[in-house]
Amino acid sequence: MVREFSYITDFEQWEKEFNFLHSVKVRFGETDMFGHLNNTVPFVYFEEARIEFLAERGLKDEWLSGKSEAIPVVADLQCDFLEQVFFGETLSIGVKVDSLGRSSCDIHYKGTTENGKVCFIGRGTLVQISSKTGKAEPFTSSVKEKLLGESI
Amino acid sequence: MVREFSYITDFEQWEKEFNFLHSVKVRFGETDMFGHLNNTVPFVYFEEARIEFLAERGLKDEWLSGKSEAIPVVADLQCDFLEQVFFGETLSIGVKVDSLGRSSCDIHYKGTTENGKVCFIGRGTLVQISSKTGKAEPFTSSVKEKLLGESI
Amino acid sequence: MVREFSYITDFEQWEKEFNFLHSVKVRFGETDMFGHLNNTVPFVYFEEARIEFLAERGLKDEWLSGKSEAIPVVADLQCDFLEQVFFGETLSIGVKVDSLGRSSCDIHYKGTTENGKVCFIGRGTLVQISSKTGKAEPFTSSVKEKLLGESI
Amino acid sequence: MVREFSYITDFEQWEKEFNFLHSVKVRFGETDMFGHLNNTVPFVYFEEARIEFLAERGLKDEWLSGKSEAIPVVADLQCDFLEQVFFGETLSIGVKVDSLGRSSCDIHYKGTTENGKVCFIGRGTLVQISSKTGKAEPFTSSVKEKLLGESI
Repeated sequence: MVREFSYITDFEQWEKEFNFLHSVKVRFGETDMFGHLNNTVPFVYFEEARIEFLAERGLKDEWLSGKSEAIPVVADLQCDFLEQVFFGETLSIGVKVDSLGRSSCDIHYKGTTENGKVCFIGRGTLVQISSKTGKAEPFTSSVKEKLLGESI
Repeated sequence: MVREFSYITDFEQWEKEFNFLHSVKVRFGETDMFGHLNNTVPFVYFEEARIEFLAERGLKDEWLSGKSEAIPVVADLQCDFLEQVFFGETLSIGVKVDSLGRSSCDIHYKGTTENGKVCFIGRGTLVQISSKTGKAEPFTSSVKEKLLGESI
Repeated sequence: MVREFSYITDFEQWEKEFNFLHSVKVRFGETDMFGHLNNTVPFVYFEEARIEFLAERGLKDEWLSGKSEAIPVVADLQCDFLEQVFFGETLSIGVKVDSLGRSSCDIHYKGTTENGKVCFIGRGTLVQISSKTGKAEPFTSSVKEKLLGESI
Repeated sequence: MVREFSYITDFEQWEKEFNFLHSVKVRFGETDMFGHLNNTVPFVYFEEARIEFLAERGLKDEWLSGKSEAIPVVADLQCDFLEQVFFGETLSIGVKVDSLGRSSCDIHYKGTTENGKVCFIGRGTLVQISSKTGKAEPFTSSVKEKLLGESI
């Protein structure tokens, strides 16, 4: 199957750019009566992996500690399901910042099975807003560097 | 099968005492690969039904609005699974206060299928604590009346 | 905020085309520590609403009974989050077939709060495949009519 | 707080008997608007840990492969909540067979935080039934040995 994805120009190149990988193991309760992973669950994996990614980039304190006025908000999420996933499989969830704007960034995800097959991919916009005004808040250069991984 | 339940002395009598019923419909994603309702889900139904029950008894404002220092805490939960439940079934979840103490009460649950079979039952202790001290906080007589349904 | 959505050309027109509405009430356990609906949950609502929609269109027996070789598969899903949603809110989830292909269709979703605000929108491709070969299976004209709601 | 638990006679002794430990990390989406782990989630952890436990005891093939007529069924579950649990905490879930009957066993669970506090405990009955007749099926001596860990 040669599927096209609006958010990927060159799949091979895109695949290679995931340096951060987070491992999840499919829970029994995450399957459904069709016998495979219910397709609402990859979004849960994306969330878990994204938070681990942000923590590794040193943004947990900045964003998730509740100390800062600026908070990250997920504006949209999408997922393409490529292969069925089953109970007990260990998946590797890749996370990367695909592009970076003034106050938002496009985060991409790639789920891979143990035998190396890409089983689902996705993306979502993360916007930094002020928790007080609710308006978009430009990233500081320090946050930008962390998102791009330049400081690592 | 004649099963005994430590928290029920007379099942027939116990069954009749549910005046509050809340309806839930089994979601596709709540099934698992065994083809039936995953057995962690009845606890989700208990929570939903308990909150509806407390709201109907006029305790939502008291307990769930965040205005009061006294808050309800679930100290324990248990469920006995009697019949398999399947996708799309509409269940009736009965809720009642089985016994009432100084600062805690024992809430009982009964799940029934459309054809009248009891599919799971359960119970749990609700304790009123002070959100400041974390210690048990005796019920006011007004809350006691509401829990017992005497004001209704 | 004037946001653009790649899958909507005229938002006002798009909004009006939802004839099927399914009601859900936000569960306590569906909130997260940010105090609002966790953003993986709208996908659960989409699934629930889609199945109710297909059942109403007379496709439950065809697709969900397990009797037929042809089964529907979700190829992709996406959601745009427009407004925060809170515990206890009753949402109306609109579902429609936005476009219909040979063996797949594009299903759109619209979540609306009680006061009429659109809180999240989304879409996803549903593909009919053969459960035996795993390959795309063209819709019969009967299924097409049902999907388009012409028979109703 | 000195709480008593009907299924534990000597807490200190009971605590020491967990040889099998499974690690879980609290997901963001597993918290609720009260800011802590939603109390339906420990049952999900129990399930995950129980399956890992059974796999380690060599019972996965026997019970979860779908090859055998005898299948394990959860007859009841309960949990006592001792301490609040928060997002990002890594918990250790202990699992043990507390007692073994002819065709059922009593499985106990202990959740511990990183700093060694027991945050929740629980138990549940696992019954072996025939998937054909639905009736209780006595354990073979091989399964009994595995459950008791004597073969390890």
